[in-house]
Amino acid sequence: MTYQPPLRDMAFVLDDVLDAPARLSTLTAHADIDAGLMKQVLEEAGRFAAEVVAPLNAGGDREGCRFADGKVQTPAGFAAAYRQFCEAGWPALACATKHGGQGLPHLLNCALFEMLSAANHGWTMYPGLLHGAYACLSTHASDALKTQYLGKIVSGEWLATMCLTEAHAGSDLGLLRTRAVLQDDGSYRLSGDKIFISGGEQDMTDNIVHLVLARLPDAPTGSKGLSLFLVPKFLPDGTRNAVHCTGIEHKMGIRGSATCSMHFEQATGWLVGDEGRGLAAMFVMMNSARLHVGAQGLGIAEAAYQRALAYARERTQSRAPGRTATANAADPIVMQPAVQKLLMEQRCRIEGGRMLAYWSGLLLDLAEHDHDAGQRRLHHDRLEFITPVIKAVLTDNGFQNASLALQVFGGHGYVTETGIDQYLRDARITMIYEGSNEIQAIDFLLRKALADGGRRMTDFIAMIEQDVAQNGASDDSLATQKQQLLQLTRYLEQTTHAIAAASAGQPQLPYFIAEEMLRLTGHAAMAWLWLKAARSATRQHAADPLFYGGKRDSACYYFAFLFPEVQQLCGVVDTCLAAGAPAIPSDLTHHDAA
Amino acid sequence: MTYQPPLRDMAFVLDDVLDAPARLSTLTAHADIDAGLMKQVLEEAGRFAAEVVAPLNAGGDREGCRFADGKVQTPAGFAAAYRQFCEAGWPALACATKHGGQGLPHLLNCALFEMLSAANHGWTMYPGLLHGAYACLSTHASDALKTQYLGKIVSGEWLATMCLTEAHAGSDLGLLRTRAVLQDDGSYRLSGDKIFISGGEQDMTDNIVHLVLARLPDAPTGSKGLSLFLVPKFLPDGTRNAVHCTGIEHKMGIRGSATCSMHFEQATGWLVGDEGRGLAAMFVMMNSARLHVGAQGLGIAEAAYQRALAYARERTQSRAPGRTATANAADPIVMQPAVQKLLMEQRCRIEGGRMLAYWSGLLLDLAEHDHDAGQRRLHHDRLEFITPVIKAVLTDNGFQNASLALQVFGGHGYVTETGIDQYLRDARITMIYEGSNEIQAIDFLLRKALADGGRRMTDFIAMIEQDVAQNGASDDSLATQKQQLLQLTRYLEQTTHAIAAASAGQPQLPYFIAEEMLRLTGHAAMAWLWLKAARSATRQHAADPLFYGGKRDSACYYFAFLFPEVQQLCGVVDTCLAAGAPAIPSDLTHHDAA
Repeated sequence: MTYQPPLRDMAFVLDDVLDAPARLSTLTAHADIDAGLMKQVLEEAGRFAAEVVAPLNAGGDREGCRFADGKVQTPAGFAAAYRQFCEAGWPALACATKHGGQGLPHLLNCALFEMLSAANHGWTMYPGLLHGAYACLSTHASDALKTQYLGKIVSGEWLATMCLTEAHAGSDLGLLRTRAVLQDDGSYRLSGDKIFISGGEQDMTDNIVHLVLARLPDAPTGSKGLSLFLVPKFLPDGTRNAVHCTGIEHKMGIRGSATCSMHFEQATGWLVGDEGRGLAAMFVMMNSARLHVGAQGLGIAEAAYQRALAYARERTQSRAPGRTATANAADPIVMQPAVQKLLMEQRCRIEGGRMLAYWSGLLLDLAEHDHDAGQRRLHHDRLEFITPVIKAVLTDNGFQNASLALQVFGGHGYVTETGIDQYLRDARITMIYEGSNEIQAIDFLLRKALADGGRRMTDFIAMIEQDVAQNGASDDSLATQKQQLLQLTRYLEQTTHAIAAASAGQPQLPYFIAEEMLRLTGHAAMAWLWLKAARSATRQHAADPLFYGGKRDSACYYFAFLFPEVQQLCGVVDTCLAAGAPAIPSDLTHHDAA
Repeated sequence: MTYQPPLRDMAFVLDDVLDAPARLSTLTAHADIDAGLMKQVLEEAGRFAAEVVAPLNAGGDREGCRFADGKVQTPAGFAAAYRQFCEAGWPALACATKHGGQGLPHLLNCALFEMLSAANHGWTMYPGLLHGAYACLSTHASDALKTQYLGKIVSGEWLATMCLTEAHAGSDLGLLRTRAVLQDDGSYRLSGDKIFISGGEQDMTDNIVHLVLARLPDAPTGSKGLSLFLVPKFLPDGTRNAVHCTGIEHKMGIRGSATCSMHFEQATGWLVGDEGRGLAAMFVMMNSARLHVGAQGLGIAEAAYQRALAYARERTQSRAPGRTATANAADPIVMQPAVQKLLMEQRCRIEGGRMLAYWSGLLLDLAEHDHDAGQRRLHHDRLEFITPVIKAVLTDNGFQNASLALQVFGGHGYVTETGIDQYLRDARITMIYEGSNEIQAIDFLLRKALADGGRRMTDFIAMIEQDVAQNGASDDSLATQKQQLLQLTRYLEQTTHAIAAASAGQPQLPYFIAEEMLRLTGHAAMAWLWLKAARSATRQHAADPLFYGGKRDSACYYFAFLFPEVQQLCGVVDTCLAAGAPAIPSDLTHHDAA
């Protein structure tokens, strides 16, 4: 078995840290949720991920996708596994019952996709956008489109894509050139070329539903001129639409996923949402995708960690320091402090990342189903605030963790046979797609933290401080760590205002410290969750000293070895606030002068 | 041209920062060295790297090596380029004239190998061990072996390998099982299997000189029982020796380099150095190799940076913040602060790394040729002290830089066509081979910094503080940065003693903070060199404001954005010193319990 679903760790986060079953069951939509039901769903999901999807991972990487005559052949077993996925009803998991879904919490969907990504990132790319497309269409599409398409997406019978990027327009969607022209029947004809379209063509489903950003003839330039269209591969009358795959990319990783170039030649499509409001409609899908990508980073990190830990327990090399002599000349390398550091750094990032990801899943459910409109708004705001943090931090950590896992294997990790390099190669894309992590940082600082006079940052900090004040006193042994967190939240509050004030005269300044502010916020969230975890572990320690003791040790390890990054980040931010944006050498920007 | 030798940056380090030509010319062996001669050699070396070796880089990665019937076929063009390399006399560059070498400084050899690694890491693996083998044999081999082999190695006619690793013995060479039995004629018969032997078989040279660690029948267990042997592929009488390649690895990167499994079956070899002193003899080669690997990290980082910078200047996307409107809707992304950060982080690491690497090259020359024996010893000690720091820091940075360079390309960087992913894949091995970076950290803290009552750390700090005191006053604008450095050196001095004191009762403790102490020492060295660089740039500013202004800006950027890592590292070390080694969850080490 290459991947063991970390069900106990997941249950710890859901039940002990987030109290999710109890909180969800207060919502009318999820009144029947309890810890047992959640456990049962995750066990099933874990079995599917480990037994059906994981065995296809290495082969998918080796084989890759093949392209010929406009058709894509996915790796052996991929299509069959997808059929099983649909038959088991997984696409419908968190879709509303009125659309044919199971109506279960988004939180479970988040855990499902963590496990699928861990098992096989390449395969998971195909159903990866299903839920985002569902959310986008159920919010913005006309009733006619919903009737036609939503059921097929909920069942997974048809897969969906997100067609944004063009060769000259990646981070800057305002440069898009694909054009849409209104027809007499109310449909549109789309013409243009898109690249990097995951699953743009595949051999898994009879039809593919493309969600395409394009520009109307009279639209203004820039991102305000974009509209969103639904363009199916096959039209309702069964004729082939004029959208074709012209090639697939050869990539560093996720080789089992077909990354397609798509040509639209007067392809028929229908408007989703309002004209000129395409980006807003697409962002429903994009935000869902960003949380999903965070879960990918988390899943890959977990899978790589499991491999590294197994190897570290098995490989013997040298006597570990401080170990008394045994019959063997060498100990398992897991006894070496240097290897323990590699493993604990991974473990803390994974467990902290999981708490953060699942918290966001819970927010999504609360934002949708809380009885109180003000509370729904609050949860929605918190989710929007933390989304770029989750996307960037969990994917940076996913890649970094895969590299640490490879390091545990030493030279054997560099040999493709071991398979550990695939995690590193696969993980690297998560820092780039669905908005690069640099874009996430700008989105976070400029559009979330600084917007509205810092309202959302203030709320985030108040939420943490309140929780710490209410629940902190029960565990004095974590008093130092609690102070460290409160120092950080004070810092974030003050610094957000200081940046707002400074940026009035120095518009570039926030861009130079956006990444630092994002990571600081990530640490505040994780430190808060680690404190909750440690408190919960202390409370339940007697029930299972090994398990809960491990959680407490991990919390302490996080504060001792990972949290100090805060000092580095504050050092950078403080220097920039004091000295202003850094001087960039002129020869960097002026080519001729170099 | 995919790689431009950074000759001006190199000359800045050699001439302006290190004053290398003047310092070398005080040595009898290098009395005729001046800046002009060094420049001329590096221009030639740069031309060779850029015009002959670099064009084979992408093809070497695509094609890889082929293995059949015990023979290895290297990628197209590799063997021919190697012949040109030898014809131009590059293998002999820094070998002594008495052995047929050119007798030029090691410092130039260091710069040569930076450029070769930048141009083509895979190809450079073949001649990569030549100089180490030369150093090892010229120090430890018998006159008979020297006569037979040294000339062929100096000319490059025969290549050399380092045969250490066995399947069960990587970091722990004490577990080696290859056996050597003395014969009546004074030769030995070696039997055993080695893995991960770079260039163990190839189609470039008529003969291959293997340097092999093995164990005599009566040798004690552990690393003290190892002896070093020279085992040629072809014996002096022309017969084929019983050493054969049994396969090559499929690797994540450096695919142009043949990584061989070697089988020794009663192969004939000769002892190098004394029986049981194999590790000491091999360490002459290993230390040379570690500095060489540091130069690889540097070279890869430079090459990746050049590609990223070119792309950032060419790719337009979005209006940069604070830019006034132009005719174009988008600016080159090099105008974006987020991209400037990606580039400046790379640039500071490269330029800092180059200063550190070349400083070590100069130390090597001074250690060999200073007139005063005490000075030779001092330079030798400093070189030994800084070698693990250079190996670990420059390779960590090389991989991290390659990842940042890829990030500049966005999605296009993930597509293999762009070629940027090769740098990331190639760079990853440098953190592992020639002693993993974890081994470097342990070597540094345990065997260098803490050894002899911290004598070498004290000397290192005194050297820096003295230099800062002597030369610091001339530039008040860097007063803050100077104070930051002096704070760090004070910290290192005190903390080294504190760790020594604490480790008496807690033998595991130093192992948990070895990496942090290594990186702190790296920052002390780089900050010291950046101050020297900034002072020199200020002095010469008027001569070329663009160039020297850029150096000053980079120095300030280093202190503002990279140096703050010091705060993180100190935070970790302080916590461990206060609280002791971290508690590691029991379920990590006890499998059954998990």
